[in-house]
Amino acid sequence: MSDVLIALGNILEERKNASADSSYVASLYGKGLNKILEKVGEEATEVIIAAKDAEQAQSKADVIYETADLWFHTLVMLAHLNIKPEEILQELARRFSISGLDEKASRTGNK
Amino acid sequence: MSDVLIALGNILEERKNASADSSYVASLYGKGLNKILEKVGEEATEVIIAAKDAEQAQSKADVIYETADLWFHTLVMLAHLNIKPEEILQELARRFSISGLDEKASRTGNK
Amino acid sequence: MSDVLIALGNILEERKNASADSSYVASLYGKGLNKILEKVGEEATEVIIAAKDAEQAQSKADVIYETADLWFHTLVMLAHLNIKPEEILQELARRFSISGLDEKASRTGNK
Amino acid sequence: MSDVLIALGNILEERKNASADSSYVASLYGKGLNKILEKVGEEATEVIIAAKDAEQAQSKADVIYETADLWFHTLVMLAHLNIKPEEILQELARRFSISGLDEKASRTGNK
Repeated sequence: MSDVLIALGNILEERKNASADSSYVASLYGKGLNKILEKVGEEATEVIIAAKDAEQAQSKADVIYETADLWFHTLVMLAHLNIKPEEILQELARRFSISGLDEKASRTGNK
Repeated sequence: MSDVLIALGNILEERKNASADSSYVASLYGKGLNKILEKVGEEATEVIIAAKDAEQAQSKADVIYETADLWFHTLVMLAHLNIKPEEILQELARRFSISGLDEKASRTGNK
Repeated sequence: MSDVLIALGNILEERKNASADSSYVASLYGKGLNKILEKVGEEATEVIIAAKDAEQAQSKADVIYETADLWFHTLVMLAHLNIKPEEILQELARRFSISGLDEKASRTGNK
Repeated sequence: MSDVLIALGNILEERKNASADSSYVASLYGKGLNKILEKVGEEATEVIIAAKDAEQAQSKADVIYETADLWFHTLVMLAHLNIKPEEILQELARRFSISGLDEKASRTGNK
């Protein structure tokens, strides 16, 4: 299930070689870091608004959608800066002493 | 490797029952949704600033650290709203047609 | 010079009665608070990015442009919530013991 | 009334020469642009949250307080970058054809 971020990181890496008009992501890369960061800021705002609405209406769908947008645009930013999602996940694992990572990482063949 | 988010989601779920002074996360839950969302906004800002600095200095460490902070605080928000990280990952998988994830991951070899 | 915010507040108040397709502002009002707040978040992000670029390039033009955008969209938000710019200015004056306000305010006829 | 921003800009300019431990503003300057921009991002988030709460509760006080915080921290940023508040006000006046501002303000009577 959760290899999604790794798989998505790979997809985003591959699209760096695509022409700028071939996809939304390729277009974002073409516009450069500032445009990517604007999207990160926009999506963070939309997450916050959706969460406030969820607090009132008990609806989760918008929060899920907007959080996916936020994580996605941070993945685009990471790819643009040549950082792999695994590096973020390792940092989180380290902080929370989530063990078994090295073993798992070596099994799935990630670096 | 990326089961980290699932594992972290479980840890955050468990801490909802802890007393507010027992940990940073329990304290955040105690302060309520607004304080959690303030942290999401703060961390998004710090990601953007770190990315701009990385553009100049070619250093990745701060971007990794701040992105981990941002993802972490979105996970706290999700737990507070009773949303599992899996729901975000499923949304991302759906958008990018990342189906049969384990099979796909092994087929692409995660480079 | 600085009555600009008051004058702009009046303009924004008047446009609340315009049809939604008659201007950018009327369109924003028509879309509701969430869309207005998304713009506030977007513009805050653009201010931050412009300031980081100004730090490198010593250019002020983008910071001025984006800060104007940010203040403008906060004014739209205030109008939507029936808050006058004067109320923000009074709060700032109070904090910094900037005197002469009451006299000036009574002279210009603001409450 | 709205000379508050000009007066506050002057105060902030003067404090650039104060020692870093003499006031909150001097301390912010001492910490540099990134810390100032973090505050801008934080305060924008708090404005958005307060506005969402105002939508539910019809209370304006928090929106006024947080918008004052946001404008204040943008003024600190401008001072740090050697930009005067007048430059933002001029940009806004230009966009909205607010010329001969004092006359205009008296003509509309500021209701």
